[in-house]
Amino acid sequence: MTQSKRYIDLKANRIETVAGNGLLDRRALLRNGVAFAGALGTVVGLRATGAAAEPLVEAPWSLAPGDPVPAYQLPSKFAKSVVRTLSNPDFEPRTSQSRTPHHLLDGTITPNGVFFTIVHDGVPEIDPAVHQLLIHGLVKQPLLFSFETLLRFPMTSRVAFLECGGNSAALFSPKPLQADVQALHGLVSCAEWTGVKLSTLLEETGVDPKAKWFIAEGADAAHVMRSVPLTKAMDDAMIALYQNGEPLMPGNGYPMRLFLPGYEGNMNIKYVRRIKLLAEPAMSYWESQVYTEPLPSGKAYQFYFVNEVKSFITQPSPGRPLQQPGVYEISGIAYSGTGKISKVQVSADGGGSWADAALQEPVLSKAFTRFRMPWRWNGGPAILQSRALDEAGNVQPTRAQFVAQRGELSSVPPLLAFKNHHFNAVVSWAIDNRGAVTHAYA
Amino acid sequence: MTQSKRYIDLKANRIETVAGNGLLDRRALLRNGVAFAGALGTVVGLRATGAAAEPLVEAPWSLAPGDPVPAYQLPSKFAKSVVRTLSNPDFEPRTSQSRTPHHLLDGTITPNGVFFTIVHDGVPEIDPAVHQLLIHGLVKQPLLFSFETLLRFPMTSRVAFLECGGNSAALFSPKPLQADVQALHGLVSCAEWTGVKLSTLLEETGVDPKAKWFIAEGADAAHVMRSVPLTKAMDDAMIALYQNGEPLMPGNGYPMRLFLPGYEGNMNIKYVRRIKLLAEPAMSYWESQVYTEPLPSGKAYQFYFVNEVKSFITQPSPGRPLQQPGVYEISGIAYSGTGKISKVQVSADGGGSWADAALQEPVLSKAFTRFRMPWRWNGGPAILQSRALDEAGNVQPTRAQFVAQRGELSSVPPLLAFKNHHFNAVVSWAIDNRGAVTHAYA
Repeated sequence: MTQSKRYIDLKANRIETVAGNGLLDRRALLRNGVAFAGALGTVVGLRATGAAAEPLVEAPWSLAPGDPVPAYQLPSKFAKSVVRTLSNPDFEPRTSQSRTPHHLLDGTITPNGVFFTIVHDGVPEIDPAVHQLLIHGLVKQPLLFSFETLLRFPMTSRVAFLECGGNSAALFSPKPLQADVQALHGLVSCAEWTGVKLSTLLEETGVDPKAKWFIAEGADAAHVMRSVPLTKAMDDAMIALYQNGEPLMPGNGYPMRLFLPGYEGNMNIKYVRRIKLLAEPAMSYWESQVYTEPLPSGKAYQFYFVNEVKSFITQPSPGRPLQQPGVYEISGIAYSGTGKISKVQVSADGGGSWADAALQEPVLSKAFTRFRMPWRWNGGPAILQSRALDEAGNVQPTRAQFVAQRGELSSVPPLLAFKNHHFNAVVSWAIDNRGAVTHAYA
Repeated sequence: MTQSKRYIDLKANRIETVAGNGLLDRRALLRNGVAFAGALGTVVGLRATGAAAEPLVEAPWSLAPGDPVPAYQLPSKFAKSVVRTLSNPDFEPRTSQSRTPHHLLDGTITPNGVFFTIVHDGVPEIDPAVHQLLIHGLVKQPLLFSFETLLRFPMTSRVAFLECGGNSAALFSPKPLQADVQALHGLVSCAEWTGVKLSTLLEETGVDPKAKWFIAEGADAAHVMRSVPLTKAMDDAMIALYQNGEPLMPGNGYPMRLFLPGYEGNMNIKYVRRIKLLAEPAMSYWESQVYTEPLPSGKAYQFYFVNEVKSFITQPSPGRPLQQPGVYEISGIAYSGTGKISKVQVSADGGGSWADAALQEPVLSKAFTRFRMPWRWNGGPAILQSRALDEAGNVQPTRAQFVAQRGELSSVPPLLAFKNHHFNAVVSWAIDNRGAVTHAYA
């Protein structure tokens, strides 16, 4: 890692340059704007003189009553682009993905309206008065739990991300596909989940010492089922009932889902109706045929659960171009299925030099961490990258390192329909001298 | 505080009773269910035998495709009661309150759909391409900021509650009004807010040393305006642009609002179009006539900004009765405009004895903290209370202490239309021997 340190005079303030191609000291963000703001230079607000002074011009909405208040409020019509994109808008009989518009969001919580979903046979409308969860197999006493019964148990809440194993799969392509953050990385979201720890329910049923795995099965028509090691049940698995405070969204598993913090999305069985304890994994269709990780050797990873340490930049990004030279905040999301993010580094010169980004507190285990980095764009070409590290010592690999191990896909199927998983390498955005942002491999 | 300690045998497990009328050791919640679960006794899941075993009965939603995936997803039709209640459903020309259904939520984040709102003249639909924020008055250079311009500035995110000064005002009544948590305490919510620190923008305009206050004004027809000490601007005030990750809801200030963590809701000016720096407070209509705190003496508090330390129990609560004797989790929300919650104590005997509740981590400053307390209801009468303490040493007062200082309102106006503010005393739920829950003063 090369770090060049020099001081440049930006308007009235001095901001330390900490890495190549204009990366600025992240401490500028933490000092109440004292150092950073003046450096924005030509992009500050318009000088307000004459007509902009009092009395203020009255806009139409300043002169007439607004709209009635709804019982469940929805975004402004002016924010209508801040929605999920749909892979199957005509609802043909196949899997439907909806992707989160991370390039239009900020913070670490994904609001429920735009939380990503994947459903293999539509979104079921399940009556919680009828639905039950059966826990059986290698237990001492099989038990059925209704939604109402689960509400009686002790609850726990935690913020955690959820990512499809196939998120970012388009980056297995030998050439960088041109698409925005939503299309490339929109199959991950983060919410506060509240529910009953699975270990609490297993205390009710009792566990046969022969049990080492369990299989969880959903009640929707797809009946997705996956085998999970029992150690996860005894660790942090929960039966989630609430998502960001309210009952789960139908696309996210209402009325209840298995939630396995840090494990790939499809294992977090939605609409969970059965948890059966087993001595060995069940080798279901979904784990043996669908969610495998083919390797260049022709073999495949088996039971590849954890979403590895990862990050991507959301601003600037394709579709969020730069308007003019000046200071920008580079902002993005980092997360790891292993634990807390320990550091995020940003490069503006394609990995030639790196600087530490500011991490938004609190940094939580297995949750989105927002990183921010001030950058002075001089109007020339740049390649922006982020590289996340987690508390277990894992480092996000370069794409070259990643494909050396995992391979590329030689044919180019339709965008985003790749059949490989767990892409977590460094992502590159190329800036040209007009400020346009494209996807690049660097 | 009296604490009785004795050991009782609950089914197979021993759980320590730590205070009167069945309060159990909170550590039972933290030990992976090992001690707690067995104590649920008669309320565990149904024993699954015969017909409940394999093959599972297929429900209608297990046999047919579900619904199409929407771009912006909404709650299940079976969760239709988890919405806001409206004080002005016919949209008459007056203030409209909508209240958060805390008795049906869990966790600490309030989802955007049911975040409370108060609007004095409807919900405006503001075009962010037209709206501007003017910062002027005692500044060195007045500036106008558009939404697009603000997106260029460094952002900060924080989870924080927002509470109307009039929340819980019905408890000024000399007799306990019978209503649920939503009706009594629904004018508070909590979200992750992301925006630009106001201090960053004031760095751009420069500040005249004579400036000690600023007045903020909204662009909607009500033009709410409030004076705020400049020290708050230099501390943690922000111009918020995002709420739980997505752009602000129209009822919560889209496209931008002033956000003052811990200060009463109306000061957090929505649709903010002007911030004018002043040497003295402006004494606007809204602060001198509307949002004042009358005292028994006939005088009134002036500039009473901070929402004091407070808590209330959400489960059990009116409308969420107990079904049968057994172990329950008492759960609720605590918060303080001064900082972090340091402790929440729960009583099941109307304040005769108290025990410490478990606090859900992370405990964040000026944010909701979820507390949880295991309780064995023996089927007899009980009075449940919670009492929060914050890191500054503030303690939630009893109602008797509170009204001795602040008074009651001798007439009983229509429920929830009280004209007094900042009620933060201990709230009591009375349980009768059928498990019904009513509002009580104790």
